[in-house]
Amino acid sequence: MIASSGPVPPRSGPPADPPAGPAPAPAHGTLSLVGIGPGAGDHVTPAALAAIGEAEVVVGYTTYIKLVRHLIAGKEVIRTGMTEEIGRARAAVERARAGSKVVLVSSGDAGVYGMAGLVFEVLRDLGWRRGDSPALRLIPGITALSSCGSLVGAPLGHDFCAISLSDLLTPWPVIARRIEAAAAADFVIGLYNPASGRRTRQIVEAQATIRRHRDGTTPVALVKSAYRKLQHAVITDLDHLLDYEIGMLTTVLVGSSQSFVFEGYLVTPRGYGHKYTAAGQVKDGQRPGHSLVLGDAALPHATLSDAMLPDAASPDTLLADAMLADVTLPDAMLPDAGSSDAPLSESAVPEVV
Amino acid sequence: MIASSGPVPPRSGPPADPPAGPAPAPAHGTLSLVGIGPGAGDHVTPAALAAIGEAEVVVGYTTYIKLVRHLIAGKEVIRTGMTEEIGRARAAVERARAGSKVVLVSSGDAGVYGMAGLVFEVLRDLGWRRGDSPALRLIPGITALSSCGSLVGAPLGHDFCAISLSDLLTPWPVIARRIEAAAAADFVIGLYNPASGRRTRQIVEAQATIRRHRDGTTPVALVKSAYRKLQHAVITDLDHLLDYEIGMLTTVLVGSSQSFVFEGYLVTPRGYGHKYTAAGQVKDGQRPGHSLVLGDAALPHATLSDAMLPDAASPDTLLADAMLADVTLPDAMLPDAGSSDAPLSESAVPEVV
Repeated sequence: MIASSGPVPPRSGPPADPPAGPAPAPAHGTLSLVGIGPGAGDHVTPAALAAIGEAEVVVGYTTYIKLVRHLIAGKEVIRTGMTEEIGRARAAVERARAGSKVVLVSSGDAGVYGMAGLVFEVLRDLGWRRGDSPALRLIPGITALSSCGSLVGAPLGHDFCAISLSDLLTPWPVIARRIEAAAAADFVIGLYNPASGRRTRQIVEAQATIRRHRDGTTPVALVKSAYRKLQHAVITDLDHLLDYEIGMLTTVLVGSSQSFVFEGYLVTPRGYGHKYTAAGQVKDGQRPGHSLVLGDAALPHATLSDAMLPDAASPDTLLADAMLADVTLPDAMLPDAGSSDAPLSESAVPEVV
Repeated sequence: MIASSGPVPPRSGPPADPPAGPAPAPAHGTLSLVGIGPGAGDHVTPAALAAIGEAEVVVGYTTYIKLVRHLIAGKEVIRTGMTEEIGRARAAVERARAGSKVVLVSSGDAGVYGMAGLVFEVLRDLGWRRGDSPALRLIPGITALSSCGSLVGAPLGHDFCAISLSDLLTPWPVIARRIEAAAAADFVIGLYNPASGRRTRQIVEAQATIRRHRDGTTPVALVKSAYRKLQHAVITDLDHLLDYEIGMLTTVLVGSSQSFVFEGYLVTPRGYGHKYTAAGQVKDGQRPGHSLVLGDAALPHATLSDAMLPDAASPDTLLADAMLADVTLPDAMLPDAGSSDAPLSESAVPEVV
């Protein structure tokens, strides 16, 4: 980067020797990678709005540009079609490198399947270094999983995976392996890009794969255009999800074995029911702030969802068959002899669960 | 729910017969479950701010209450310690059911390992029905994965899992199985609750499990207190992550086999390099808007990360060993005879990748 040494004096008469010192540097531009969340004004952060407000150039896919059109009057707008991600990333980088304040908008969070990764690849290809123009700013946004989740309940209350079913850029076997793994390990599964006009096979295969590991009554939410005009959310189950229209704008949320539907909401419990009664009392043998105590693996199992009922089984029966079928319970997980008689310490420093 | 019929007249003299009709109904309250993201004002959405502004009662864990203290002057605040999630959820529900406008704040997104799921469990226990008091509002927020990701680059550029290492409420074998599955299927892995003063074994086991499936040079980001005063972000790798301080406030982001570090940023590519050159040209044999074309499985494999180099291997060598070791390539994925001579159609409706 060339340091600036002030303006070049105007020329008059025959050309003088070039002024001493380096030529003025081009302006140092900025490139902000901004996630606008679901696109509704209510769910765009102040940081995202500020970046868009300060921008001279706004780059984005046509639909996302439309979502922020009220913010971009007077700015230069570079809008592109959907296949033109690389062109879009390059245009944003080039304009910012040349000195403009550029914002590249993505829906959701720019870092999640968004344009951020591609921008880094373009910068790497151009030999960009930290300190060069443009300066980078990454502004987080609300992901599609969170937006869609908030419309149907609390599906993401426990461990979850995000998998894109688009095999335009990723080998299908890689995707299939991920679906299999997520299903086998009982993750809540969020499926991005589940289908399109041309691609319908992948959601069928995904459903079949997950179905091999999970009951057909496992709740599934299908959410389209969250927080936008054509928003549509449906709660169905694994056996019936293919009966519904699933397209490019749909996010599919498949519950885990623990998820349940309550009053039309899809909920994945965090596991409080394993340790506490619904009233908040600690169950026999359990200790707040300590690892969940599991019983002897030889005792009859009960499904974890039973644990929330007032007459729930004791901790000894809190083992779910499906989860432990191929796991040997380590000695450390067996209750200590006599521990149920030890005073439960409430003064221990609690931790975030 | 009892319909309201107006105020009860004051009594005088001997008690009169009860007035005809039902007694006045209690006010219909609202319970808003609000994610405040990382807690910095810049990253709290207008919807979240509006809900907090309208609230009469704000309930939350002490730390999160502090993050919004500038918004809650004059409001009743119910703050609790960390072990008291059930109490907090019940307090919020009870006050809202009784007619107050209540906000229950969570950090990040309230639906992701947050309080939302627990609130539904409490409502279910109380026999709540849609239409009863309180009305529910779920307001999405920026997850810790997104906040932390934005501080280190674009780690979530492709399929990822979120796994909580806290076994306070979840049997460790369930968690261990999920780590194994995520590692084997090459997900980017976000670890929540990686460790605490008392719990240090789980992150050690997680690292060992992932290490069995992924190179020791796999990039890993450790981010603490994103967008807060004591923010600290480190990029290291799988072999060295245990050298760093990891506690309750740390989010661990483990890259996939495709993730790379560039100028101090951790990036997980979306896969554009499989189909396009860095300049955006379509590679031989590939077609925009169509499934990625893979070569004959019998040809030598190359790692996918080679694909982004200017002299990258042809699509025929885009198969990664680790991913296809146990997958038979379906006939549909083999290139059609003669397809490389067919015109590439640019007019097809593109889809979101």
